Amino acid sequence: MPAGTDDRMIGGLRHNGDDMLDAKLLSLNQVTLMPCSLEDVVAAMGRHGVPAISIWRDKLHECGLAKARKLLESEGLAVSGLCFGGLITSPDAGEAAKAMDEVRRAIDDAAAVEAGCLVFVAGGVDPRDKDIRATRARALDRVAELVPYARAAKVTLGLEPLHPMICATRSVVSTIGIANDWCDALAAEDVVGIAVDTYAVWWDPDLETEIRRAGKRICAFHISDWLPDTQDLRLDRGMMGDGVIDIPCIRRMVEAAGYAGHREVEIFSARNWWKQDADEVIRIVKERYQTAV
Amino acid sequence: MPAGTDDRMIGGLRHNGDDMLDAKLLSLNQVTLMPCSLEDVVAAMGRHGVPAISIWRDKLHECGLAKARKLLESEGLAVSGLCFGGLITSPDAGEAAKAMDEVRRAIDDAAAVEAGCLVFVAGGVDPRDKDIRATRARALDRVAELVPYARAAKVTLGLEPLHPMICATRSVVSTIGIANDWCDALAAEDVVGIAVDTYAVWWDPDLETEIRRAGKRICAFHISDWLPDTQDLRLDRGMMGDGVIDIPCIRRMVEAAGYAGHREVEIFSARNWWKQDADEVIRIVKERYQTAV
Repeated sequence: MPAGTDDRMIGGLRHNGDDMLDAKLLSLNQVTLMPCSLEDVVAAMGRHGVPAISIWRDKLHECGLAKARKLLESEGLAVSGLCFGGLITSPDAGEAAKAMDEVRRAIDDAAAVEAGCLVFVAGGVDPRDKDIRATRARALDRVAELVPYARAAKVTLGLEPLHPMICATRSVVSTIGIANDWCDALAAEDVVGIAVDTYAVWWDPDLETEIRRAGKRICAFHISDWLPDTQDLRLDRGMMGDGVIDIPCIRRMVEAAGYAGHREVEIFSARNWWKQDADEVIRIVKERYQTAV
Repeated sequence: MPAGTDDRMIGGLRHNGDDMLDAKLLSLNQVTLMPCSLEDVVAAMGRHGVPAISIWRDKLHECGLAKARKLLESEGLAVSGLCFGGLITSPDAGEAAKAMDEVRRAIDDAAAVEAGCLVFVAGGVDPRDKDIRATRARALDRVAELVPYARAAKVTLGLEPLHPMICATRSVVSTIGIANDWCDALAAEDVVGIAVDTYAVWWDPDLETEIRRAGKRICAFHISDWLPDTQDLRLDRGMMGDGVIDIPCIRRMVEAAGYAGHREVEIFSARNWWKQDADEVIRIVKERYQTAV
């Protein structure tokens, strides 16, 4: 891992051997502006020239698919991802079948907005079956079942390792290593990738090895920071530069592995950023994109 | 990993191929009764016949070493561990030297109460140096420096992997794999072991492999459960059986690896158990020790 210390800023300019980051590769995950409608987020992004967005399904449905497509087209926005599909770990066959249908609808939505990937969140551990190994195996089998549908829709499933602190509720895919194992097992590289989120993986001792192993599988790169005084398991992420994650270091790892796509800013922040004015949030995102990514 | 489903309870009796668990191996970490003084905890344990305790240094100092030793002796309590020493990751040399001295005092305390081990919590990631690999290397070097002191005091340092959600604040040792790597590097098996805590490690895909690798290094086994609706990063642990961790499965893993020591109940629970009557908490701990461990 390159030392973070070569990432000094001098007079606000990047001084780490990198050029300025390509502004065309900045994407804003709309959850960063959670209180806003899709319409309002797209308008704000237009005012600030942010070229790509990641969309949440509930916001997409509130707006309506046809209208959303028009909006995205009129602003010329790329869609780096759609959030999300998954939650398919239930030990109950009926519940699982319903969840699988919902993933197929999410795949349809991702195709409709031409999303770079459908972010795939596996699901957690059910108190009715505490066997985490069996849970992981069950979820992997179900992803395999979804592959033909995703392939037909030309939608990439972006398996997203989530932080172990939400293993019980959101995803048993807790490391890039597990996601790589799943990709090996699925043998569907054309349609299954890996979404790397700095907030979820920064602590992992195998991070560099597993990012290298992921290589071209990496289909999304999500960025936010870990606040030392964080207070919530999901909704207290920090703006890049405000926490302890060496984000430039992880960015260089994914780029060394071959990833050249968007850097998507995804900040769940109930206590801070969700209370701020959208224009101010985007202004700071753009600034930190150059100074802390 | 053995399936959790063979762990059915029939009419309240253990029915998983295990005999009843040996009551002599139950230990209570006093943090489970956090509001109580050491005196009160020892008295309550005496009333309920719990044979071993793990002590916190602040409570020990409040009581006073001499008085504590008398109390423990008069109740015939074994001391499964002392919590804790560590927090030695600072990038500042002066701060680190102070922290190292404090660990030496903790080693002295552990020797004074004849603790089975001093629980060792490495320390987190400092915003002044976000390089986590360098932080881990620094901490390992400092543990190596402490080994002669621990050896002279005949105190085992129990490296405790903590959950990645407290990597920034408490410990960069986030997996048993890291603890095993440190033990390999230290080559001090007589005085450095590993404390396995179900709450910290249950999500780890390499759990079984790394517990097997740890083998005789395992010097403590801490138990509590992960609540699906958990609300806090440190102080919201659940009673065994109330969450999603397959605790019997992990107990069998550590025992298969050669561990035959105490099973120490360590429940940080600001929202529930810390508000309950001490006798009621101990009564339930004893019950769950037989039905959910």
